Amino acid sequence: MELDINLLRDSLRRGNSDELATALKAHHPADLAAALQDLEPSVAWDILHQAAIPRQAAVFGYLDPDFRTLLVNSISQQDLAAIVMHMRADDRADLYRQLTEEQRETLMPALAQAEREDIRRLAAYREGTAGAIMTSAYAALPPDISASDALAVLRREAPNKETIYRAYVIDSHRKLLGSVRLQDLITAPAQTRVSALMKSCSYQIRVDEHAEEAARRIAHYDVIALPVVDADNRLVGIITHDDALDVLQAGATEDFHRVGTVTHLESGVGSASIPMLYRARIVWLMLLVFGSIFSGAGIAHFEDTIAANLALMFFLPILISSGGNAGSQSATLMIRALATGEIGLSDWTRVLGRELVLAILLGVSMACAIGVIGVVRGGQQIALVISLSMVLIVVVGSLIGMLLPFLLSRFRLDPATASTPLVTSIADATGVLIYFSIASVLLNMPA
Amino acid sequence: MELDINLLRDSLRRGNSDELATALKAHHPADLAAALQDLEPSVAWDILHQAAIPRQAAVFGYLDPDFRTLLVNSISQQDLAAIVMHMRADDRADLYRQLTEEQRETLMPALAQAEREDIRRLAAYREGTAGAIMTSAYAALPPDISASDALAVLRREAPNKETIYRAYVIDSHRKLLGSVRLQDLITAPAQTRVSALMKSCSYQIRVDEHAEEAARRIAHYDVIALPVVDADNRLVGIITHDDALDVLQAGATEDFHRVGTVTHLESGVGSASIPMLYRARIVWLMLLVFGSIFSGAGIAHFEDTIAANLALMFFLPILISSGGNAGSQSATLMIRALATGEIGLSDWTRVLGRELVLAILLGVSMACAIGVIGVVRGGQQIALVISLSMVLIVVVGSLIGMLLPFLLSRFRLDPATASTPLVTSIADATGVLIYFSIASVLLNMPA
Repeated sequence: MELDINLLRDSLRRGNSDELATALKAHHPADLAAALQDLEPSVAWDILHQAAIPRQAAVFGYLDPDFRTLLVNSISQQDLAAIVMHMRADDRADLYRQLTEEQRETLMPALAQAEREDIRRLAAYREGTAGAIMTSAYAALPPDISASDALAVLRREAPNKETIYRAYVIDSHRKLLGSVRLQDLITAPAQTRVSALMKSCSYQIRVDEHAEEAARRIAHYDVIALPVVDADNRLVGIITHDDALDVLQAGATEDFHRVGTVTHLESGVGSASIPMLYRARIVWLMLLVFGSIFSGAGIAHFEDTIAANLALMFFLPILISSGGNAGSQSATLMIRALATGEIGLSDWTRVLGRELVLAILLGVSMACAIGVIGVVRGGQQIALVISLSMVLIVVVGSLIGMLLPFLLSRFRLDPATASTPLVTSIADATGVLIYFSIASVLLNMPA
Repeated sequence: MELDINLLRDSLRRGNSDELATALKAHHPADLAAALQDLEPSVAWDILHQAAIPRQAAVFGYLDPDFRTLLVNSISQQDLAAIVMHMRADDRADLYRQLTEEQRETLMPALAQAEREDIRRLAAYREGTAGAIMTSAYAALPPDISASDALAVLRREAPNKETIYRAYVIDSHRKLLGSVRLQDLITAPAQTRVSALMKSCSYQIRVDEHAEEAARRIAHYDVIALPVVDADNRLVGIITHDDALDVLQAGATEDFHRVGTVTHLESGVGSASIPMLYRARIVWLMLLVFGSIFSGAGIAHFEDTIAANLALMFFLPILISSGGNAGSQSATLMIRALATGEIGLSDWTRVLGRELVLAILLGVSMACAIGVIGVVRGGQQIALVISLSMVLIVVVGSLIGMLLPFLLSRFRLDPATASTPLVTSIADATGVLIYFSIASVLLNMPA
């Protein structure tokens, strides 16, 4: 199963195209795609060119979109058209969406009319919508034919369909009536009507809904494919489980990055260029600088308190970071639970009560630990100040971390924007104020 | 599609079991499961009890494992046995794994011999392995029968199999020879041998490999199911795409939580108890307290420098947090790229060079921004100190964030342990040292 790309490269260098063709036949397209992506696009194409065209198209379907776009530049118009004709309808539309205007203009005339129209129609849907990840290669059946006739239809159409394991039943206006499993068509008596075997679809999605919602629905219902309909409930495509998986994985990566305050990265970190990475990181870094200015201003405000008791400084990082850490824990739990749909917006009151109890428990535990250090390093009074501060800071930090994702959701912003460094910034500044305020009062020092 | 649980509860209260049965028939089991989980287990069972047994089993398959375990306590032995007999083989083993010894002992005698043995065999695999998420309900075929005979076999066995869309071809010793698609059996001439239609499996997994690896392979090859074999290449089960999806989602959630330093949470945050949440959070909070003691000690060490120039304190939060933030960005990108397999361990030198260039660019940008504030608030000398510190702190923080996940991977620890707050702690302490060291030297102040 392991594929050594160097062997392919060697075969190419030695001009041994038989050896190359054999290797290209022996490995799974997914493995070939993964291996080719480590090469220069032109070298990758020299190798892939030796495979049969349907195989070239299969490998194309597994390539990373970014690499695919680069690869296109190494391919002649005729070769590209041949590949595109053999690609899956959704991959084809995907590729088209990423081509430059110039590339599109050279490609399109080389395609057959039907493929050209199909590409134009699919590529018209906005990225991120269900329409943008659906395929038009679904199997459809009328309701009034027999199971054996239906099987004959599916048998004939199978080579051009993404899946025939579930066929969609539509009326003469293409309205979606339900779906029927290949399994049920096979096991039913030959004369049974399709309408008697079909189940109504409790799951379907509008073409303009989010692609992530489509993926969530496929995961929720454990189905192979989800029918996509237009505003009049006419069937326009299907989304298959493998494409849903890609969307969910990309979504999870995006959420994950957002927690580390990396803005949207169009490609994987391995292949991203330095300017791309710079853009993805600098915005948040700068924003957070200005966030921590509030902490700095807080410290400056209490300069006299600090000057009068420099021992307070020792505990500053501990107290501040604890608030931020507790807040980031709460935020992380909420962001993910909201993303997976495990809790909803309306649950916030229930969650708030529990978070408060939990935060007090956590705060008191931390206060006990830090209190001991306080007595040793600064005496009883300092210990009292930092213990009280710790409880309050952990509680406030936790509540900020918990509430921020709900608040953002409420105003239809992405809850993952409450990424932990944002929570940390806010909790930090709050922590400075709480700590030095308590210190000023309890130690009778100037504020 | 929306299911109002209150309607179900009302029907139950009014004793209207016809209405209840209709509602239970009308909705998808996945939606029923989601709705029932919001109720008390005993009420949920009173409702679910009104459904036909196969439907009860279907809903059971969609329930959250934790809720399912609670629900079992409300169900009589006979009722539970009836449900278990209708459950999917993998869900059944899953349920068994979570029962108490006592619950198991009352359940098992009520089951048929075949189911009992199947459960025992599947439940024997360790959690987290491919064996633990596989099902024994796969369709198998011998290589030497005709396509039409194969179809007859599949037609007969379909009701008891998880999927018949792909059948696995095994020899008389159950060794895996390959697989054949239902689609190909249907479209081939009736007398074609199965062996002529089957493809060798370039993807399969050993029963003791990681469940996540199985899920990754399903995603990589875009397949509906993955065959699971033992050490002698004998077929023992299959893993289906929907179970793989669950594993990947759970894995992404776990990684996500680890970044927010929440340790493994056995259930969703919505249903987790306060003691569970406390345990998941307190360990990291405490560890990070002791992490920030180093920063405190750093500050205490430079107390004289600080006392001589309190203006330095204003910039402390900004400088320290920038190092932590840059580090957390790098760590996030690396953790996720390592998790998805986008970059490998051997890539670290390539990534290091790029990270260094990037970090210098980021550091210089930040230094320019902060330098302006420095001139305004502290004069030219302070501005020089903080600008220099900023560049150095961002570079060091980024490199720590980048290298830590690789280092942990290298020593076979989970790279996600280099979660951002750990990086932040280390970067913080380093930042304090860099800042005040530069300040001591440039401002000619006592260290």
